[in-house]
Amino acid sequence: MEKEITIYDIAKGLGVSPTTVSRALNNHPAVKEKTKKKIFDAASELGYQSNIFAANLRSKRSNNIGVIVPSLKSNFQASVLAGMEKVASEAGFNLVISQSLESSEKEIANTKSMFNSRVDGLLISLASGAENLEHFSPFYKKGIPVIFYDRIANTDISTGVSIDNIQSAQIATNHLIDQGCRRIVHVLGSTEVSVYAERLKGYKYALIDKNIPFEDNLVIVLSDINEEAGEEIVSQILKMDPLPDGLFVSNDACAASCLNHLKMNGIRVPQDMALVGFNNEIISRLVEPKITTINYPGYEMGEVAMKNLINHLEEPDTTTLQNTNKITLRSELIIRESSLKKPKS
Amino acid sequence: MEKEITIYDIAKGLGVSPTTVSRALNNHPAVKEKTKKKIFDAASELGYQSNIFAANLRSKRSNNIGVIVPSLKSNFQASVLAGMEKVASEAGFNLVISQSLESSEKEIANTKSMFNSRVDGLLISLASGAENLEHFSPFYKKGIPVIFYDRIANTDISTGVSIDNIQSAQIATNHLIDQGCRRIVHVLGSTEVSVYAERLKGYKYALIDKNIPFEDNLVIVLSDINEEAGEEIVSQILKMDPLPDGLFVSNDACAASCLNHLKMNGIRVPQDMALVGFNNEIISRLVEPKITTINYPGYEMGEVAMKNLINHLEEPDTTTLQNTNKITLRSELIIRESSLKKPKS
Repeated sequence: MEKEITIYDIAKGLGVSPTTVSRALNNHPAVKEKTKKKIFDAASELGYQSNIFAANLRSKRSNNIGVIVPSLKSNFQASVLAGMEKVASEAGFNLVISQSLESSEKEIANTKSMFNSRVDGLLISLASGAENLEHFSPFYKKGIPVIFYDRIANTDISTGVSIDNIQSAQIATNHLIDQGCRRIVHVLGSTEVSVYAERLKGYKYALIDKNIPFEDNLVIVLSDINEEAGEEIVSQILKMDPLPDGLFVSNDACAASCLNHLKMNGIRVPQDMALVGFNNEIISRLVEPKITTINYPGYEMGEVAMKNLINHLEEPDTTTLQNTNKITLRSELIIRESSLKKPKS
Repeated sequence: MEKEITIYDIAKGLGVSPTTVSRALNNHPAVKEKTKKKIFDAASELGYQSNIFAANLRSKRSNNIGVIVPSLKSNFQASVLAGMEKVASEAGFNLVISQSLESSEKEIANTKSMFNSRVDGLLISLASGAENLEHFSPFYKKGIPVIFYDRIANTDISTGVSIDNIQSAQIATNHLIDQGCRRIVHVLGSTEVSVYAERLKGYKYALIDKNIPFEDNLVIVLSDINEEAGEEIVSQILKMDPLPDGLFVSNDACAASCLNHLKMNGIRVPQDMALVGFNNEIISRLVEPKITTINYPGYEMGEVAMKNLINHLEEPDTTTLQNTNKITLRSELIIRESSLKKPKS
C-alpha cells in the first residue's frame, strides 16, 4: 500500500499552509473560493482521503446506519432497502446491511457486530423466533436509536413501522366470504413472527364476524412460505374433505405457486377455489388468473423508517421518536380475477 | 448520550488492572480463560463498545466492503447481495451498500463516498452509461481492490465476474431458430451496459451462423426493460409486418409481461410466437406457459465475487487477483413450454 496522503503533502505542493488546506477541506468561510478550488483539485489529484476515522473519533459519529433483514433474497425486502438507501444517501449516510437468515443466533451476532462497528442507528426486521430483545439493550443504554420495521417487536422503547396486519388479513378474508367462500384455508409462516400471528388473528376475526366457525385444520403453517412450498400446500388441501372453497396465502410468490399446482390438479381458480395473496408483488399481476392481493408498500416503508431514524439523529433532543410507539402505513386490497366468484360490483 | 464505558471502568469494577482487561478483550494468551470470561461478561453488561475507530486508525482496516448496485429493486441483485453477505459475514466483514439508480453521476458520488469512508474493497455492477472509469483511480492508486460483477468494465486493472453473455444469447437465439423461428425480435436495455451489448452480439452471431439476415428493426432497445415495458413492446411487435415468430427478451419479468400482453392480443405462445427470457427468475416458472430462459446464478456470482475480494485482502501479496482479468460463471438454457413449437426431443 502507498504512503497515506496528508494535508501536509497538499500544502507543500501548493505552497500554502497546512492550516489553509485543513480549513479549505472543511469549507471554512475564511478561505477564498479560488484557493478552495485549487486545494480541492490538488487533494483529488493526489488521492487524499479525508480522515474519516479520526473525524469519527472526535464526532462519535460513523455516518453508517445498520440494517438487519431476515433475508436479502426477498422482493419485499429489496423494495424496502431501495427506499431506505434513497433517503440515507440523500442525507449523507451509508447503509451497512446484514441478514439474519431467520436465525435468532445470527441476529444476535449481527446486532453485536453492528454495535461494535458503531452504527449511528439500527433498522431491523426481526428473525423468526426472536424470543427476547436482550441483544438490543446495549443500543438503548447508549442512546443509539433502534427502529423495527415490518416484523416489529412489542416494546415500549423502540418505534415500529408496519402496516395493520390484523386489519389487512381481516379485509382479505372478508372479501373471500363476500364471494361466497365458507371453507377458507389460510397459509402462513411461523406465528413466532409478528406479521403472521397478526394475520391469523385477522383471519379469525373475519370468520367470527360472519359466524363462520374457525377450524384449526384449515390453517397451514410452514417455516418458509415460498415458491417451493406450493406443491406441499396443495397436496394438503387436496386431502381435505370437503374441499375448501377459498385460499388466503400470506405472500404472492407462494400464492402463485399454489395457483400453479391447483391448476395442475384440475382445480379451477376462482370457480372451485378463490385465491387471495399478500404483498402485491409483480408475480401477482402476471399469472393467470391475476391474483387478488394486499398492497404492501415496501419502498415507502423503507423511506418512512429511515426518515424517522435520521430525524432522530439530527435532533436527538426532541422526544418525537421516543414517544412514537408505532407508525402504521396504509395498505389496501387489490381485487383481481383470482378471487372473483361473483361479477365485480 | 451516556458516558463512554472504557477498559478502566471494567478494571475498576472487577478489581483487576486495565492491562489485564485490554489483554483479555484482545484474547491475549497470558490471561486465564476464567478471567477472560469474567471480563467479557462485565464488558457486555456495562455496554462496552470495542473502540473500533481507534483500532481502525491503527490497522488501517475498516472491515467494511462497499457494494454499489445499479438498483436494489431487482430480484437478480437481491440474490447477488445475499451471496455476498453470506461470504462477507462469515469472514467478519460488513457490507456497505448503495445504489447508483442507473446514473453515472450518482455512481461517481457513491464511489467517492465509499472511498472516503475507507472501505477495504469495492464490488460494483456498473450503471448504464458509465463512460469512463476515472472515478476508480483513487482506489487503484491506494491499492484498494475493485471487482466488477455482472456489468463489468473492460479494464486491465480490475477483475470482472460475469457469465458469458455472448454465448448465452447465442444459445437462446439458436434454440429459437431450431424451433423454426425465422423472424426473431430481441428486446434489450441500453447497449451502453456491457451485458446488453454482448447479448445483442450473441443474437447476431446465431443469426449469421444460420444465414438468417439481421434486421435492425427487429431489435427493440428500451432504457428500462421491466414489467411496465411489456405493453409498449407488444404494441411495437404488433405493428411489424409480417408478424415475428420468435421473441428473445433480456429479462424474465419483462418477458412475462410481454407474454401477458401477447395473450391479451390473441397471439398464442409458443404456437404463433416462441418466447425466451433471461435470468431464471421465479416468475419464469409460474406463468402460463412457463418461460424458457437462461439460468443466471446470481447468488453464486455474489459468493464468487466476494470470496475473491476477501482472498485478496487476506493475502494482498499474491498476484492472483491482479492477474485475473475475468471470472466466468456457468450459465445454461432451461427449456420450457414458451418456446417449444416442436415436441421436446
